[in-house]
Amino acid sequence: MTDTQKLEGGLGVVKGLQVAGVSAGFRKNPERLDLALIVAPPASTAAGVFTQSNFAAAPVLLSREHLASQAEGKGFRALIINSGNANAATGETGMVTAKKVCSMLSEAINCEDEEVLVASTGVIGAQLSRNPFSVGIPMAVNLLGSGRGESIGMGLSTAEAIMTTDTFPKTAARSFVLASKDGEEITCTIGGMVKGSGMIAPHMATMIAVLATDAALEQAVLQQALKEAADVSFNKVTIDSDTSTNDSAYLIATGAISKEPLLPNSEAYETFKAVLIEVCQDLTYQIAQDGEGATKVIVVDITGAANSEEAELVARAIADSPLVKTAVAGHDANWGRIAMAAGKAGASFKQEDVSISILELEVFTKGTPIEFSEEEASKRFEERDEILISVDLGAGNGATRIWTCDLTKEYIEINGDYRS
Amino acid sequence: MTDTQKLEGGLGVVKGLQVAGVSAGFRKNPERLDLALIVAPPASTAAGVFTQSNFAAAPVLLSREHLASQAEGKGFRALIINSGNANAATGETGMVTAKKVCSMLSEAINCEDEEVLVASTGVIGAQLSRNPFSVGIPMAVNLLGSGRGESIGMGLSTAEAIMTTDTFPKTAARSFVLASKDGEEITCTIGGMVKGSGMIAPHMATMIAVLATDAALEQAVLQQALKEAADVSFNKVTIDSDTSTNDSAYLIATGAISKEPLLPNSEAYETFKAVLIEVCQDLTYQIAQDGEGATKVIVVDITGAANSEEAELVARAIADSPLVKTAVAGHDANWGRIAMAAGKAGASFKQEDVSISILELEVFTKGTPIEFSEEEASKRFEERDEILISVDLGAGNGATRIWTCDLTKEYIEINGDYRS
Repeated sequence: MTDTQKLEGGLGVVKGLQVAGVSAGFRKNPERLDLALIVAPPASTAAGVFTQSNFAAAPVLLSREHLASQAEGKGFRALIINSGNANAATGETGMVTAKKVCSMLSEAINCEDEEVLVASTGVIGAQLSRNPFSVGIPMAVNLLGSGRGESIGMGLSTAEAIMTTDTFPKTAARSFVLASKDGEEITCTIGGMVKGSGMIAPHMATMIAVLATDAALEQAVLQQALKEAADVSFNKVTIDSDTSTNDSAYLIATGAISKEPLLPNSEAYETFKAVLIEVCQDLTYQIAQDGEGATKVIVVDITGAANSEEAELVARAIADSPLVKTAVAGHDANWGRIAMAAGKAGASFKQEDVSISILELEVFTKGTPIEFSEEEASKRFEERDEILISVDLGAGNGATRIWTCDLTKEYIEINGDYRS
Repeated sequence: MTDTQKLEGGLGVVKGLQVAGVSAGFRKNPERLDLALIVAPPASTAAGVFTQSNFAAAPVLLSREHLASQAEGKGFRALIINSGNANAATGETGMVTAKKVCSMLSEAINCEDEEVLVASTGVIGAQLSRNPFSVGIPMAVNLLGSGRGESIGMGLSTAEAIMTTDTFPKTAARSFVLASKDGEEITCTIGGMVKGSGMIAPHMATMIAVLATDAALEQAVLQQALKEAADVSFNKVTIDSDTSTNDSAYLIATGAISKEPLLPNSEAYETFKAVLIEVCQDLTYQIAQDGEGATKVIVVDITGAANSEEAELVARAIADSPLVKTAVAGHDANWGRIAMAAGKAGASFKQEDVSISILELEVFTKGTPIEFSEEEASKRFEERDEILISVDLGAGNGATRIWTCDLTKEYIEINGDYRS
């Protein structure tokens, strides 16, 4: 593994990037930050992966178009994200609004519409008002202009501005030696932020994640790196099996430390990708920690599946099972429900080959229940923030790890009346 | 539709059948009924459909074997069901126990082991004790022997004996004119009972359902009728997306009203099947009503899908979405979550062709949100026990209806510490 140094401040520490988070008025609470702006220097590149939902939101549809234009030669200059309204299932009006947002921003920072990407998160099915953008964009641009953008504090505010039911802003950043040139080490930074607490079961991305680096990468290479990193991080978390209409993960490269693009398969590129994955997994873990109503992170490790697709099937069946999740919430080592969930997944294995452990206690070995200390299980439930569930299917070499959280009454509380 | 008369008493009203429900001691509460016995006269037939889980419980595995023997010429004589322990994920010991239960019963009623079917429901992963069977079987057989078996009251006790977290016993029965012979009408009865409140998302069957009729049907015909009825009833309900290890639905034919078997495709057979479906759907609806913690039944109607498989995909995505279910619990007409759930299902449709209504209020028509009265929606939530969600995908003629219920804090309460 590459030696990395952890940094505070998320996107705020990436050279070349300017960020800001402001209160634009999308929220009833006027104190709450709800508009995030990320501006990159000319010749930056960006990549994105998005929800696979048929109800993909207007900003997702528009950003896909703009990224396609960027792939054909346009640059990337800015990403704007509002919280409080998802601009999803809003028909043609929603699309017109998303386009208007891009043109308001392109005018303010003097670039082309296609160089702007846009994301929204919040209530689905309500039209997104333009007024808060009229207020918020000049405010945010002004903050960038003051030079305060490149700071740890503003990185945190930007992460706060994209929160919905999240209870804390989620950021991660690492610096590392990318390469040595003429005897000098080139230090690279990757910073990121993410939001997401409910409606989390991404396919290809998560609710909203933004990663950035001060290395230079061509868009196609950036896209590939983001896809690979998302597949082993954001695509491996599920809070409630519900996939959002607005899932978007972006990766921006400013090239501030070097204009020379990283070449695929080079040592520097592989180092970069390893750190990118580390940052994405850090953010992913924070999503599970902050799952709506969560008191525990649940890590589901599957081994011995016939293949990796079947490992995924079984892992998701367990991680999405409300009965497994409520048992963990109740500190009940009810491993029979893990067997139940594995059994319903539609994977090919025989129950007599299966072994299960929970909290590192062996409870079922090769098809036979094992006596275990309920007292010790209770003690471990009390002591640990992370509950490990391991299942060996005894059917092959397929394996995966999925992150989720427990299911508590607070999840119901949060989601019983979300719109009001 | 055939004219049917509703009867009280579930299985207790089916001629030829003897039933009993007793307290055998599987439960900590000694008052609680926990053993159901159903005995049929010689030359009866039975059919069964079962869970598709890889962790199918020992009684499921054994009953499949015994039904196969019955298909080759053995008769059906008795079904025994305990609650409180599922005898699932119990390895070889569990299978030995299930066999022992059959031989204890076959000895008590003087038949062959293969003529006995067995079912269990309750905690998964704990060994099933034989002692309660030693106590309960003679008690139950004695009740049958007293002639009290063929009664409404004992039909209800039998249904009560298979309950786990159910809050009420679930029975249904209908009588109807099966055919006319020599100018005389032949009246037939179909009675049934079901249990199921959580871990309900059957594939091929539900937790435990027992149907019986006093008509005569050959086993292969009975099997086909049960499969068709289960496909449009038990297989269309989901409480929590969790498929049980013990799903079993049985259909018994005593032939008490006529020894002449109903022939497939005859008018009498079609009449019989229509009533069987009516009884099964009645029981299915009761499962949704008594879903763990439920306050509302949710009916999900999908039309306009590309085909029936895609209708099913979208219906299940909506019915299993915790966010849709918590919104209903919170009396929140948050239809954006219905769009979200439809969007994640992986079906082929375009969002601009979709129309959605909830509580018979149009909220989204051909891709565009429609203004609706939130006040009227709140009023309908207050007044109605059944919440109708209708989605027209505008992509074809595929349609289905799925029953489910809302998701409340009581679900978490019930399942947070089920074993203790």
